[in-house]
Amino acid sequence: MHPIVATLHAELGPGKVSTEPSLIHEYSRDRAPDRPEAPALAVVFAESVQDVQTTVRECSAAGVRIVPRGAGSGLSGGAHAVANGVVLSLERMNRILDVRVDDEVAVVEPGVVNADLNAAAAPHGLMYAPDPASFTIATLGGNIGTNAGGLRCAKYGVTRDSVLALDVVLADGELVRLGHATFKGVAGYDLVALLVGSEGTLGIVVGATLRLRHLPVAIRTVAAFFPDLPSAAAAVLAVGRARVQPAIMELMDRASIQDADRLNGTDFAGRGGALLLIQTDGFGAEAEAAVVRSVLAAAGGELADDGDQDAERFVRIRRNNRGSGREDRLRVGEDVAVPRSLLVDYAAELGRIAREYRVGMKLVAHAGDGNLHPTFWAEPEPGREAEAMEELEKALDESVRVALAMGGTITGEHGVGTFKLRWLGWEQQERVRELARGIKEVFDPQGVFNPGKAI
Amino acid sequence: MHPIVATLHAELGPGKVSTEPSLIHEYSRDRAPDRPEAPALAVVFAESVQDVQTTVRECSAAGVRIVPRGAGSGLSGGAHAVANGVVLSLERMNRILDVRVDDEVAVVEPGVVNADLNAAAAPHGLMYAPDPASFTIATLGGNIGTNAGGLRCAKYGVTRDSVLALDVVLADGELVRLGHATFKGVAGYDLVALLVGSEGTLGIVVGATLRLRHLPVAIRTVAAFFPDLPSAAAAVLAVGRARVQPAIMELMDRASIQDADRLNGTDFAGRGGALLLIQTDGFGAEAEAAVVRSVLAAAGGELADDGDQDAERFVRIRRNNRGSGREDRLRVGEDVAVPRSLLVDYAAELGRIAREYRVGMKLVAHAGDGNLHPTFWAEPEPGREAEAMEELEKALDESVRVALAMGGTITGEHGVGTFKLRWLGWEQQERVRELARGIKEVFDPQGVFNPGKAI
Repeated sequence: MHPIVATLHAELGPGKVSTEPSLIHEYSRDRAPDRPEAPALAVVFAESVQDVQTTVRECSAAGVRIVPRGAGSGLSGGAHAVANGVVLSLERMNRILDVRVDDEVAVVEPGVVNADLNAAAAPHGLMYAPDPASFTIATLGGNIGTNAGGLRCAKYGVTRDSVLALDVVLADGELVRLGHATFKGVAGYDLVALLVGSEGTLGIVVGATLRLRHLPVAIRTVAAFFPDLPSAAAAVLAVGRARVQPAIMELMDRASIQDADRLNGTDFAGRGGALLLIQTDGFGAEAEAAVVRSVLAAAGGELADDGDQDAERFVRIRRNNRGSGREDRLRVGEDVAVPRSLLVDYAAELGRIAREYRVGMKLVAHAGDGNLHPTFWAEPEPGREAEAMEELEKALDESVRVALAMGGTITGEHGVGTFKLRWLGWEQQERVRELARGIKEVFDPQGVFNPGKAI
Repeated sequence: MHPIVATLHAELGPGKVSTEPSLIHEYSRDRAPDRPEAPALAVVFAESVQDVQTTVRECSAAGVRIVPRGAGSGLSGGAHAVANGVVLSLERMNRILDVRVDDEVAVVEPGVVNADLNAAAAPHGLMYAPDPASFTIATLGGNIGTNAGGLRCAKYGVTRDSVLALDVVLADGELVRLGHATFKGVAGYDLVALLVGSEGTLGIVVGATLRLRHLPVAIRTVAAFFPDLPSAAAAVLAVGRARVQPAIMELMDRASIQDADRLNGTDFAGRGGALLLIQTDGFGAEAEAAVVRSVLAAAGGELADDGDQDAERFVRIRRNNRGSGREDRLRVGEDVAVPRSLLVDYAAELGRIAREYRVGMKLVAHAGDGNLHPTFWAEPEPGREAEAMEELEKALDESVRVALAMGGTITGEHGVGTFKLRWLGWEQQERVRELARGIKEVFDPQGVFNPGKAI
């Protein structure tokens, strides 16, 4: 057993450091398709800022690396364990410290689950807007680490847009406060925005001041089936031209609808080759929904005829469409984004790629912001797994390459982690990555925090 | 004449480098109340990315500093000239390169005036949301440099929230592209957010990809007079509790109303001691305005009885309330922000401070986000200017100290520049400032860009 385990046991007290094999196994990885570098030396369950500071100080002194972890629901390997590293779980730091109703602000510990903050805010007529698909299990600290997106981003912004201030433990154990408790503030560099999405490589977030939004007074949901993806994607643009900003605008292709049918015992696939789900909210929800309905009908959509109830069922199904289990190297979900006007072109390319590399492909997309989640999979005959995996990897590479050629990005909301590192150099100039490495060096000269991730 | 002038003349060609004294005078400062360190050696008018790269390379090689400049409408000294420095004006790089309607994105050069982008976007049913009071003259590059706010921030966010990608010339003249052309994107650290608000200290922005928003299909304006500030501020919170998110929510105190009356020949001061201006927009504008009207009336507000027309006049007056001329050391506008629930308490403290230091004070506030712009002034008898200035400085210091004690910030939207540097250490721990200096060192090891500003 590595001496850091005994040290942390002694310093933190009982019940906070585990080397139990099954727990190590579970906590050494997140839901990315790739495998962690190594199992963790130990899992530390911090219960206070001081626990985090102690862990960081002891690990820094011992040259042991630290992988911070929320719920482990990430999809890119940001929480995968690393060689000679401990996993630092923040899940016990799960108190909502304050909901300042009149300020529309909440103060939380990092281990608070996204949905729990929403539950606490709702009685005050408030909500926390960022809503990754994992919102019922993912922690706010993890959301901050990946700058998590979700369904409501086009209207309400991503996680970064809701984070006002952060308490951060730096690599030498010092605690700093970044940002401000007010909606606006421009004193010095925006270090909060720098930390958000940095995947735990610059510091450990131990507290956050978050902006809340008004819980919408009304929500309307419209669902429409289209013959195919191009007609549905054209409808997305038509909604924009009508100056409607939906809270949610989700697109599912035929394979995704069939998949949902299998999981839910429904039979939607018979109704069309593409499904567009749109939610409007707020005081204008009904007026916007009326415009949406007429725009979708004019664009050839067949509206779900029993109104909101049916449509809301679609939304629930959509929200659960991706979270059914861990992916592996033979079933990989992607997360590219492209300029919205190119949704159709990109979807067509995905089809071509799947055919070319003989892999399965289904597509869901946050159509409002051009963020696509194609899933590619292979179902090889026994003994042919290696070849199938190779073809799948080629299909993934090609799908990323095409997205970049269209002016897109390799990751809209899941983060780079370990799994997407091989594509980062395709998107960013070497000089830009040098700047990022320089910043990492400023914050963490020893490379204690989550090495080999994100940049 | 410094040799850099001849070098730049030779390298850039005719008509781009000026040492004309009155122009040097004009371009060596912005609208901050303090004075620049020194007049510029020259003013360079870049017309292309290559001009900027050439200027940066030659200045770096010669050890000459560079102060980038948009319209010079900043209020904190971010564009003040520095010793041994040239001013690099980006105002001639004023082309709107693209408005991608279906993507809701614009690509611009840095010298485009904010209002010009809005004029170009409007025929497509789009707008650029950030609207600093200077929007008719300020450039987008300058807005980006200061992370400019404006009236519509509480609903639509600040400049940072509308900047997707930046083309930046680094200190050695290399051109890099930061960010992505899509709404979402989390590849690597958020260097775009880091550059936004960095006041030209990290690189020169030579291009930007900006997110546009839908031009609202409807706008409603409600104006209400209140007996005093506390009752108006209470109404602000009541609007929030009704779950209305106004596009604009502006508060003016009695002295500001009187000031506006003098400038506009109106007589609003007789109608109340505080004025609250609220605009709602979008499909829900009328429904929200109806709620706002009833909330304000219940809170004791006297609604402007001839409807929107009168109210819109107030908004025009409010928009022009601050921009009437340069400030000086005897008339200083402030820019603190406090948690919204403390607006009343902070306003009361401002009154106390003005009385204690025998200075004049008037207040306007972006009440929706707790961003206050008190203006303090002294009107000394001849020969007593120095004493008056000293009292005024004490009043300013005290107003900032109180805002910080309430959990606020020294600058909500104007930036630190040179003028607010003395307060930055009151807000930020020394360690946080060290991190900022470390980042500056990564981007600009020689200290070429805008030294002595922002951090």
